[in-house]
Amino acid sequence: MKGSLIGIGVGPGDPELLTIKAVRAIEAADIIIAPCSRQQEESIALNIVTTYIKEATELRKMIFPMISCKETLQQHWQRNAEEIALELEKGRTVVFLTLGDPMLYSTYIYINRLVRSYGHEVRTVPGITSFGAIASHLNLPLAEGDKPLLIFPMTEDTDLLEAAIAKGAEAVVMKVSQAPLRLAEIIEENQLQNNYVMVSKCGQNQESISYSLLDLKENKPPYLSTVILKSKPIEGRE
Amino acid sequence: MKGSLIGIGVGPGDPELLTIKAVRAIEAADIIIAPCSRQQEESIALNIVTTYIKEATELRKMIFPMISCKETLQQHWQRNAEEIALELEKGRTVVFLTLGDPMLYSTYIYINRLVRSYGHEVRTVPGITSFGAIASHLNLPLAEGDKPLLIFPMTEDTDLLEAAIAKGAEAVVMKVSQAPLRLAEIIEENQLQNNYVMVSKCGQNQESISYSLLDLKENKPPYLSTVILKSKPIEGRE
Repeated sequence: MKGSLIGIGVGPGDPELLTIKAVRAIEAADIIIAPCSRQQEESIALNIVTTYIKEATELRKMIFPMISCKETLQQHWQRNAEEIALELEKGRTVVFLTLGDPMLYSTYIYINRLVRSYGHEVRTVPGITSFGAIASHLNLPLAEGDKPLLIFPMTEDTDLLEAAIAKGAEAVVMKVSQAPLRLAEIIEENQLQNNYVMVSKCGQNQESISYSLLDLKENKPPYLSTVILKSKPIEGRE
Repeated sequence: MKGSLIGIGVGPGDPELLTIKAVRAIEAADIIIAPCSRQQEESIALNIVTTYIKEATELRKMIFPMISCKETLQQHWQRNAEEIALELEKGRTVVFLTLGDPMLYSTYIYINRLVRSYGHEVRTVPGITSFGAIASHLNLPLAEGDKPLLIFPMTEDTDLLEAAIAKGAEAVVMKVSQAPLRLAEIIEENQLQNNYVMVSKCGQNQESISYSLLDLKENKPPYLSTVILKSKPIEGRE
């Protein structure tokens, strides 16, 4: 019998934010795959789930380099997907870890697609997103009533983010470190200085919370930084 | 010592999609509050967590009527928040259940705000959203790369939804039953007939998945229906 691939979202950092389903999948896994960008690098996703891993389970780091050349990237994804498929052929259960939710801006999406295209069974277990965890942590609603919520990975093309702000919608800006100065500009242009909060490495040891524009403009925000941008001033800002 | 209120997201239906943190809060609760719209009504949120509740825990239904008069609603919220505060004064730990995520379109948001305004400690535990669960269940990515994702509660003012579609963004339409015909129109106008899926009551016993516009246009979609609207045709549609 062939094995199956189970992609699981491990949430943003707190091991208690894993779902029961994710923990059971980790406990039952033959192999756990932790993606990272370099072999020497620690895997944040793996650190989060360490307490749930059984001794007999094989741990394997898989390299997904952070490069912009699409061709080289696709070669890497394909090689990784083929490595997983080899284990599935042997009937093994392979669990693939993803920070946050596996269906939102994750490398797992490409692996999921490739491994299914080889004819293998793939199941996915959703995870708590960084913005969901931040909102609960700060008791800060993401959206109420009939207000739309835009999830926006920061790029130079900010038309849709500006349209959302103009409509009074709520917004979550992800990958803030890709264009922090442009985001600071938009906040200032729309007089949203009292309406936002930036959280970096939510739930991890180095978590930081900032209400200061200086952290966008002068101090380079860390890689895993998210801004929640509200249509009204945030109460209790410090 | 005063007690605390813990709002927890129980996810959309599958009891295994609760987080470890949510299960621990339920196990440690003195009182569990399950919101429902009428006293006779079953609480979906309560059904999801039943297996985790200890025998000594008090269960209490709390009525949040589905009415549009804002003043009467606010009176209800305030009465409910005061009832919770009374228990917190007695030092009890009160857990408030919410379908999906507590910080996204939930009645808990109002309770959270009121109970904190009375000076009580309130903690919130995030939950898996309906759209997160649907995406994983169908192996359907919500968004990849730098594509924005709009979470849009269906209303008659669809400007921002149409702007998102025009920009090639991804969208999740919630509360579909509020204006299903308008949504069907938008899908047809933008030739997205092959790009969407509607899921009703995800993870519950009566779950249904539809790729047919007839279910939007002629059959009234159930209350808890969500549409995922992709920028590209969905592979493997049946």
